[in-house]
Amino acid sequence: MAPASPRVVVKVDLKKRPWQQTQPLHNRWHPEIPSVAEVKTGELFRVEMVDWTGGAVKEDGSAGDIKSIDLSTVHYLSGPIKVVDEDGVAARPGDLLAVEICNLGPLPGDEWGFTASFDRENGGGFLTDHFPCATKAIWYFEGIYAYSPQIPGVRFPGLTHPGIIGTAPSKELLRIWNERERQLEEKGVESLTLCEVVHQRPLASLPTTKGCLLGNIEERTSEWERIAKEAARTIPGRENGGNCDIKNLSSGSKIYLPVFVEGANLSTGDMHFSQGDGEISFCGAIEMSGFLELKCEIIRNGMQEYLTPMGPTTLHVNPIFEIGPVEPRFSEWLVFEGISVDESGRQHYLDATVAYKRAVLNAIDYLFKFGYSKEQVYLLLSCCPCEGRISGIVDSPNAVATLAIPTAIFDQDIRPKTRKVPTGARIVKKPDVMKSTYDGKLPIIKNSSSSS
Amino acid sequence: MAPASPRVVVKVDLKKRPWQQTQPLHNRWHPEIPSVAEVKTGELFRVEMVDWTGGAVKEDGSAGDIKSIDLSTVHYLSGPIKVVDEDGVAARPGDLLAVEICNLGPLPGDEWGFTASFDRENGGGFLTDHFPCATKAIWYFEGIYAYSPQIPGVRFPGLTHPGIIGTAPSKELLRIWNERERQLEEKGVESLTLCEVVHQRPLASLPTTKGCLLGNIEERTSEWERIAKEAARTIPGRENGGNCDIKNLSSGSKIYLPVFVEGANLSTGDMHFSQGDGEISFCGAIEMSGFLELKCEIIRNGMQEYLTPMGPTTLHVNPIFEIGPVEPRFSEWLVFEGISVDESGRQHYLDATVAYKRAVLNAIDYLFKFGYSKEQVYLLLSCCPCEGRISGIVDSPNAVATLAIPTAIFDQDIRPKTRKVPTGARIVKKPDVMKSTYDGKLPIIKNSSSSS
Amino acid sequence: MAPASPRVVVKVDLKKRPWQQTQPLHNRWHPEIPSVAEVKTGELFRVEMVDWTGGAVKEDGSAGDIKSIDLSTVHYLSGPIKVVDEDGVAARPGDLLAVEICNLGPLPGDEWGFTASFDRENGGGFLTDHFPCATKAIWYFEGIYAYSPQIPGVRFPGLTHPGIIGTAPSKELLRIWNERERQLEEKGVESLTLCEVVHQRPLASLPTTKGCLLGNIEERTSEWERIAKEAARTIPGRENGGNCDIKNLSSGSKIYLPVFVEGANLSTGDMHFSQGDGEISFCGAIEMSGFLELKCEIIRNGMQEYLTPMGPTTLHVNPIFEIGPVEPRFSEWLVFEGISVDESGRQHYLDATVAYKRAVLNAIDYLFKFGYSKEQVYLLLSCCPCEGRISGIVDSPNAVATLAIPTAIFDQDIRPKTRKVPTGARIVKKPDVMKSTYDGKLPIIKNSSSSS
Amino acid sequence: MAPASPRVVVKVDLKKRPWQQTQPLHNRWHPEIPSVAEVKTGELFRVEMVDWTGGAVKEDGSAGDIKSIDLSTVHYLSGPIKVVDEDGVAARPGDLLAVEICNLGPLPGDEWGFTASFDRENGGGFLTDHFPCATKAIWYFEGIYAYSPQIPGVRFPGLTHPGIIGTAPSKELLRIWNERERQLEEKGVESLTLCEVVHQRPLASLPTTKGCLLGNIEERTSEWERIAKEAARTIPGRENGGNCDIKNLSSGSKIYLPVFVEGANLSTGDMHFSQGDGEISFCGAIEMSGFLELKCEIIRNGMQEYLTPMGPTTLHVNPIFEIGPVEPRFSEWLVFEGISVDESGRQHYLDATVAYKRAVLNAIDYLFKFGYSKEQVYLLLSCCPCEGRISGIVDSPNAVATLAIPTAIFDQDIRPKTRKVPTGARIVKKPDVMKSTYDGKLPIIKNSSSSS
Repeated sequence: MAPASPRVVVKVDLKKRPWQQTQPLHNRWHPEIPSVAEVKTGELFRVEMVDWTGGAVKEDGSAGDIKSIDLSTVHYLSGPIKVVDEDGVAARPGDLLAVEICNLGPLPGDEWGFTASFDRENGGGFLTDHFPCATKAIWYFEGIYAYSPQIPGVRFPGLTHPGIIGTAPSKELLRIWNERERQLEEKGVESLTLCEVVHQRPLASLPTTKGCLLGNIEERTSEWERIAKEAARTIPGRENGGNCDIKNLSSGSKIYLPVFVEGANLSTGDMHFSQGDGEISFCGAIEMSGFLELKCEIIRNGMQEYLTPMGPTTLHVNPIFEIGPVEPRFSEWLVFEGISVDESGRQHYLDATVAYKRAVLNAIDYLFKFGYSKEQVYLLLSCCPCEGRISGIVDSPNAVATLAIPTAIFDQDIRPKTRKVPTGARIVKKPDVMKSTYDGKLPIIKNSSSSS
Repeated sequence: MAPASPRVVVKVDLKKRPWQQTQPLHNRWHPEIPSVAEVKTGELFRVEMVDWTGGAVKEDGSAGDIKSIDLSTVHYLSGPIKVVDEDGVAARPGDLLAVEICNLGPLPGDEWGFTASFDRENGGGFLTDHFPCATKAIWYFEGIYAYSPQIPGVRFPGLTHPGIIGTAPSKELLRIWNERERQLEEKGVESLTLCEVVHQRPLASLPTTKGCLLGNIEERTSEWERIAKEAARTIPGRENGGNCDIKNLSSGSKIYLPVFVEGANLSTGDMHFSQGDGEISFCGAIEMSGFLELKCEIIRNGMQEYLTPMGPTTLHVNPIFEIGPVEPRFSEWLVFEGISVDESGRQHYLDATVAYKRAVLNAIDYLFKFGYSKEQVYLLLSCCPCEGRISGIVDSPNAVATLAIPTAIFDQDIRPKTRKVPTGARIVKKPDVMKSTYDGKLPIIKNSSSSS
Repeated sequence: MAPASPRVVVKVDLKKRPWQQTQPLHNRWHPEIPSVAEVKTGELFRVEMVDWTGGAVKEDGSAGDIKSIDLSTVHYLSGPIKVVDEDGVAARPGDLLAVEICNLGPLPGDEWGFTASFDRENGGGFLTDHFPCATKAIWYFEGIYAYSPQIPGVRFPGLTHPGIIGTAPSKELLRIWNERERQLEEKGVESLTLCEVVHQRPLASLPTTKGCLLGNIEERTSEWERIAKEAARTIPGRENGGNCDIKNLSSGSKIYLPVFVEGANLSTGDMHFSQGDGEISFCGAIEMSGFLELKCEIIRNGMQEYLTPMGPTTLHVNPIFEIGPVEPRFSEWLVFEGISVDESGRQHYLDATVAYKRAVLNAIDYLFKFGYSKEQVYLLLSCCPCEGRISGIVDSPNAVATLAIPTAIFDQDIRPKTRKVPTGARIVKKPDVMKSTYDGKLPIIKNSSSSS
Repeated sequence: MAPASPRVVVKVDLKKRPWQQTQPLHNRWHPEIPSVAEVKTGELFRVEMVDWTGGAVKEDGSAGDIKSIDLSTVHYLSGPIKVVDEDGVAARPGDLLAVEICNLGPLPGDEWGFTASFDRENGGGFLTDHFPCATKAIWYFEGIYAYSPQIPGVRFPGLTHPGIIGTAPSKELLRIWNERERQLEEKGVESLTLCEVVHQRPLASLPTTKGCLLGNIEERTSEWERIAKEAARTIPGRENGGNCDIKNLSSGSKIYLPVFVEGANLSTGDMHFSQGDGEISFCGAIEMSGFLELKCEIIRNGMQEYLTPMGPTTLHVNPIFEIGPVEPRFSEWLVFEGISVDESGRQHYLDATVAYKRAVLNAIDYLFKFGYSKEQVYLLLSCCPCEGRISGIVDSPNAVATLAIPTAIFDQDIRPKTRKVPTGARIVKKPDVMKSTYDGKLPIIKNSSSSS
């Protein structure tokens, strides 16, 4: 009667490197990267993907691969996929592409992932001034659950999702991106108050031919050179969706993406077994290879119907999302608060980023008291299903941000207790995360008041 | 056998003004404001409170009271309440005060509230550059539900909570607050990148004798003058808790507050029938009078046991919270995303505040298409149980913030549809919110691309 | 502008006995009991109620009042309330009355309740053959939470609801009730397979003048005598709703009741602070006095529109319910199973009642191992928010019923553990429930294999 | 470092019939059926299974296969699996086997299932007196969602679970089963009050060599004959778990099974993509082939530690379950009630089965008004995530059972409405379920009052 299994439209072979795949991958956004597959609206199809580094990070006992990673090569994406309607007419600029995530998960035979923080001089992370070393933890999956030998005493169900899903930008949109990010980079640190508090660098990652992979565009041709110099990097989320890292985009979710080019040219990758809001350590989700089972609809003229530009052009829009009905259910949360006063005691003005940094630091030091190393908690809060909230954004000068951690993921009761305080020797959680040395010369923030 | 009803330790008379109450209220934080009641640990007690403006805002048909409000007088708090243990020994600096919210709600006979946005030159709000006028909506309560004649077509259960709960600061902590906020104010707008995007003013509210109410301190004495000049304003949340506006602090929640003075001197107020994350319009919750039923425990030496200073002194801490088990249950959410590119198209660096502003603007314009005025949505998103998340904070240069709205609060299906787009004449939701004129001269941001 | 507080239409004075109230109560269903109040559709109104025994059970240290209780006097109901539409036209037979529970709770100053099991010869309970004695436990409320000195180590949020809410029966419906229940009673135990397993008696409670209270009908008149002899007892739920004991009918719920008489004549009572599915010990909820805030709509001709008779007449219908959005949230449940084989090992045929009895017995013996007396667990499972499910009803000959208990209500981890089995001396939970002697001669079932 | 993928210990080939599999299946419970695989505690392993009929029901357009099905051949189970601890010591009688369901789902390439009701003279179902014909609907899966061409207008996420999971019985336990079920069958219909209301037949399915499959026991040998005559049928759930049909035993659940034979001999099968509480149409879940990923622990002596016999021997126990943290989240439920009065108007005594039958009948007739055929609803309520509750079991003579249906599974609003009643022509949901003729002579119950 009806079709059963989803059609596989992008297949990956994990034994091959990203540039060796039959359907070549890409790691840039550009309108001219040709589509590698075509799907019809209403059709259930399957997309496989390598992990965001394309296998550069190993299931081994060292953080060396993290320390030396070449970030010009990420993220390796599957696609682009051209979407046509039941009459074969392609999605058109101005349409909305509704993408339903019907199913997703790790690739059979590859049920593991990693969480890491980069070296301060090679990518960094939200707290890189506190944790400048490259660190790494391996996670293994037991069905819906993940556990890590390097972070003992926690186990949690994954809220699996693609970190990146987006449509191809038009030339005009690409130009806007490159222009505004170049300006940021050029004006530099001095222009930005926040830079005194958030030390992740570079400020922006501009187009570069280095590490560039452009799907079916033949490498090192003049066309390739031209496109490589224009093509946007995949690090930030932008108007086309992209690296939005919304941890709740799991089974049953729906994503309404604006269409900028004929066919929509949907790409996806950067699968996360689980991630905390903010993905704080940068390589902070449980990064893995995986698959998506998707179904698309085209809402003709949907950009005008449903989106409103928020900027100087009609391209300044953002996708809309619907969250799915199947999520891990937690009933008890411990919540840490931060206000927009930084670690030096300096007052900032309604700065949610500063407030969230303080909330995260508070949580790390709290859990440290229960036997974890601070690096273990840093990685754990990057990847466990914790919620980062903007609780107050109007009570000048303090933004209030909160970080809520589900208590059920721990094998001990981590709530404060009136009578039994955790005195005496801490039961240290061993082994620790893998850790490289930091060989740079930048000052490391040491909270003098903090426990160590 | 055992005691039944909670003991009322602070009672308010809504027919009287804040300064006429039998147990006088206060609207400043200062260690020398004397306690007006004493409770024992383990005892269930009841605290009543006026709304944060002390009755200045009326259940009437005009936003005039909002436009002319005197913000030097807010927030009117109940307390301070001294907490002692079962042996009568007071909480001591360095302890943690665990406060359980066993019950809370509006005061019988006063089951209504208001949501408002201030005039840009008298308080403003998160989007004051877009919405410079004072606006107001009245909400009525039907048990757990609220509805507003000015925002027809929505009804939702309240996640009622106190906007403010905190302990008295020590002299030293007070000095730290005043110093850092004064510096911010003095350095001014030029020093702050964010100020170009967030237009709420003033940057900070410094101590002032104007509007000051200090509980049992006799007014206009020299002692009163001295304290009034030192006492911190209640607008921002700080190390003592205070105006943290965490919308999930409802029945069954627990708040672990640091103790800075003998007896802890707990104060609370600013009851919200409901609030969205961020409380974006500033007077953004459903503001009301109300009551709390509380139970306290003292964790001796708990600050050292459980908190870690995050700043130059051991006083730079933040409270911890546990969320209660009874919350409205929503299964379907529509999610709006923002990135740290502002309305002019300018790129900011990992700025969650800018990203959240864009997410909120996206949501407002989206719901506008379904028949609401933008002012209706601005107030609605301030007070309905929407969630504001920091989804990504590491993908330079874009922070990704999301705003999730439960679809069940609307009497229409607000999700995008493939076939039936909302074409034709919008069904406008009448009447609109009450609105004053904006008489200032500051430029109003008009999104040229936006629908209107 | 709009009305604020709900209008109180039925007020009770807890210092008075049920028959002394200003608006007299009633404890029977009969079409001729006159309404004591009138409400309009759309109006928010408040109904107060005594506990189901009208104060016969005391907050004291003895189960004597339970043992000697006169069940001919229960349940004391508030009402009847006549419902009219906005034009003043009363609800008519054939309409549906939609009743929304906007709010509910204990009466201020009376924040306590009781759970009890009756003596086997005076009411019994689901497990009366195992637990023939009258027992009692007192519960105190701390806002949303209840705790009992007699059942230490548990505390849970209440899912408060009215045990009884219903409309008045018509004469014809009343006749049907009395006829079918009389037949059951007359045919007796021999006719019923289930009676060998379920030992609660009597089989049915037929009309009686004893203990009868008929609201505004003057007592001991001939009219009173006539009505008292016809009026249905309130014990069972029936076509009019009545004692349905659906534990999820809490704030925000909606009840669609069939209307059998002019004005609908809504009555309600038997408020429960909390109840487990099944309310197994009979007086099994946390019984209390309380209040409801309600709002009614009339769906004209709704019985035909929405209900379908299931029996020989058009009156054989049942109400429909919608569950509200605010319920305690539990994430972890321990589930006990029962099949339709009774304690003697005898096979029954798809009998969900037998299966549920076994599931409950399994749960009681399990929790007994954790230090509770079996009587404590019997009462606890009657009143805590446990779920009773019909899991399988087709796999002949065994029905499968399950009882799911939220683990978070206990102050210990009650899950089975691989390593740490609860060996050694049990930590007995003291004090125990209050308990009377059983002076009857019926054999008590003692499970020979069971722990004791 | 650590192992990644689960080891496949039972593999099935869907192109082969059950008796042709490399690791032979079995469809009876008997201690002497040899184990086909061995697993260690702590090891993650994968078990594949055919659908319960072993492929007898086809993805086609006719209910003929359902009408003529041979129920002596079901359920085809995978296993038995011997469980040993890390030292290689097998599970022993008296232990508890803790089985964690880490993952589960359909087999790739076979993403479809069926729901059916049997002919009244060949298996029947809970409402076979109302629906005597064999009916069938096919479901297709889109990842977590299922939809059926025969039941248009509904789509829901599956709460996938194994219908059957159990350990092998000992000889003594087997004897107890056969004896008690034989007695039921022999005493016959007359002995059972419930039989007048529940018309599913036979009363019990006794051992038979017909259709018997015994794994590695060579067929038609004298040993096979002996065992086949003793081996218990798999239809009912029993002390060993077995066909418990608990719909919430999905990912993350844990099942504590008593061990009766050396090695435990775990068998499982009857995978359900989704099921409603009660599985009312008998073949009522969405039946499919599938896989389980499991992890076992042995709790030595756990039967004595945690279980209590409820019957004449120490073998009269039941498993315990823990529900997992990942379930579809529904916020709105419409609830139908039934009381223990049957369709003829006859009063029964606290009979939850009768009450549940009436609740289900009420729901069917209600949804019929929204355009579904009654057969569509009968099958839908068998397989969608509806909850069957025992709400009241003590209010003589009426048990109250409720059936709660999540409203979000429908593409229309199925709640009663005050103003817009569904008048006029029903929009009939076409096509209907597949349906065979009923050729028997038993009277069919036609509710005279019911809509048709």
